[in-house]
Amino acid sequence: MLTNLQHDRLDVVLVSPRNPLNIGAAARAMANFGFTRLSVVAPYAPHWREARSAIGAPELLLNANETVSLAGAVANSTLVVGTGTLTYRKPEQKVVRLPDLAPLIRHALEDGGRVALVFGPEKHGLTREDLSYCHLLVEIPTDARQPSMNLGQAVAVCLYELAARAFATSIDEATATAEGHAPAAASSARLELLAGLVEQTMAAADYSPAAMREANRHDLRLLLRRLAPSEKDVRRILGLFRRILWRLER
Amino acid sequence: MLTNLQHDRLDVVLVSPRNPLNIGAAARAMANFGFTRLSVVAPYAPHWREARSAIGAPELLLNANETVSLAGAVANSTLVVGTGTLTYRKPEQKVVRLPDLAPLIRHALEDGGRVALVFGPEKHGLTREDLSYCHLLVEIPTDARQPSMNLGQAVAVCLYELAARAFATSIDEATATAEGHAPAAASSARLELLAGLVEQTMAAADYSPAAMREANRHDLRLLLRRLAPSEKDVRRILGLFRRILWRLER
Repeated sequence: MLTNLQHDRLDVVLVSPRNPLNIGAAARAMANFGFTRLSVVAPYAPHWREARSAIGAPELLLNANETVSLAGAVANSTLVVGTGTLTYRKPEQKVVRLPDLAPLIRHALEDGGRVALVFGPEKHGLTREDLSYCHLLVEIPTDARQPSMNLGQAVAVCLYELAARAFATSIDEATATAEGHAPAAASSARLELLAGLVEQTMAAADYSPAAMREANRHDLRLLLRRLAPSEKDVRRILGLFRRILWRLER
Repeated sequence: MLTNLQHDRLDVVLVSPRNPLNIGAAARAMANFGFTRLSVVAPYAPHWREARSAIGAPELLLNANETVSLAGAVANSTLVVGTGTLTYRKPEQKVVRLPDLAPLIRHALEDGGRVALVFGPEKHGLTREDLSYCHLLVEIPTDARQPSMNLGQAVAVCLYELAARAFATSIDEATATAEGHAPAAASSARLELLAGLVEQTMAAADYSPAAMREANRHDLRLLLRRLAPSEKDVRRILGLFRRILWRLER
């Protein structure tokens, strides 16, 4: 049996799932591997109702958190991991193969963080906008001739890997490492706050024409995830930019 | 990408599967992980026909080997591995957890053997009679409160584990490292340049009294090493701060 002390620090996030069978399969895989926290972003309402009312739907499906945006679903997460096959898209973040993911997740948990594992819609996967909220992308190493996995199976494979290799620590180990070293990572919501402030500062300094702002916002979001500042660093940088902005606007 | 040199030496065997969706899901997982040899033992005929005639059924499903007995399906195998959760059955063979299975499979392949991975019917799993054909049993480590996995998901999880850790070879590794390499890190000199510019900006914005500047410089240097921006990121941040400084000094 797995220890479930840390399992509630992983959120599984399904972005706009369509097929009620897939939603049910994802929930079942979560129950199989001892995870309980499911968030669903902008689900297609009739299918979402259907999935939740299915006979034998696990309790975690009934308790699922429903949000209108991915930003809302990952607001408290310190490490946001996007999933996908990436065969035709050039990734803007670091890509990690699923067999190599566990140490990174373990590290985030040991730092007292919260992890979100994000799955895109069945048809096209996560959008570029969705991916801009992700610190890193995980790739399930599939065969090039049939790379695209069924959603329920992809969730099962990812959760198996993490349950077996990132969460399966003894209680002693978990508490021993929780104390000391690396500073706490900033949450997604704090990074968004900082991004907003930097953007305001850019505007106040006429850094770029209005037409460029959308692209800059996207790049800025990626940059902050790449740098992965700690909460303490975020406070410091916020302080500096607040001061700069105040001076620019005076 | 996985190499398929050895993938035809693993047979996936489904014993009396009932649900055509599960048969299709098992076949899809096989295609995802580059396996091609499927055997089906005594399938329920109407559902077996339905699964094979489904739109988009992978070729391996059309080419599946149909046998009346498990003995026939595993006749050529040198290592037969039974799957199941084993929560209420006392196993008579050696039981290996899935995360520990890969070395045994690799060993069998290196010896020139053939491996069969056997999955039981959805309802009750493999019978004691079925298990008597198995050299060992593999257990997927699931949560005790919900141990039983969906067949299609169980197949996906097992094949993921074996594809990544028993069948993966140097080709796979080579592509992984080619994709995964990090962008060029900024040199210490570039970090110093950036630190100097941020410091000038702080002064221009009256961020802190002169007495604090020494301490701030120190913290800033540490902060930049912690964030470890790439050369490309440094260029970007320099651009922003040059603009801000120019505006502050105007």
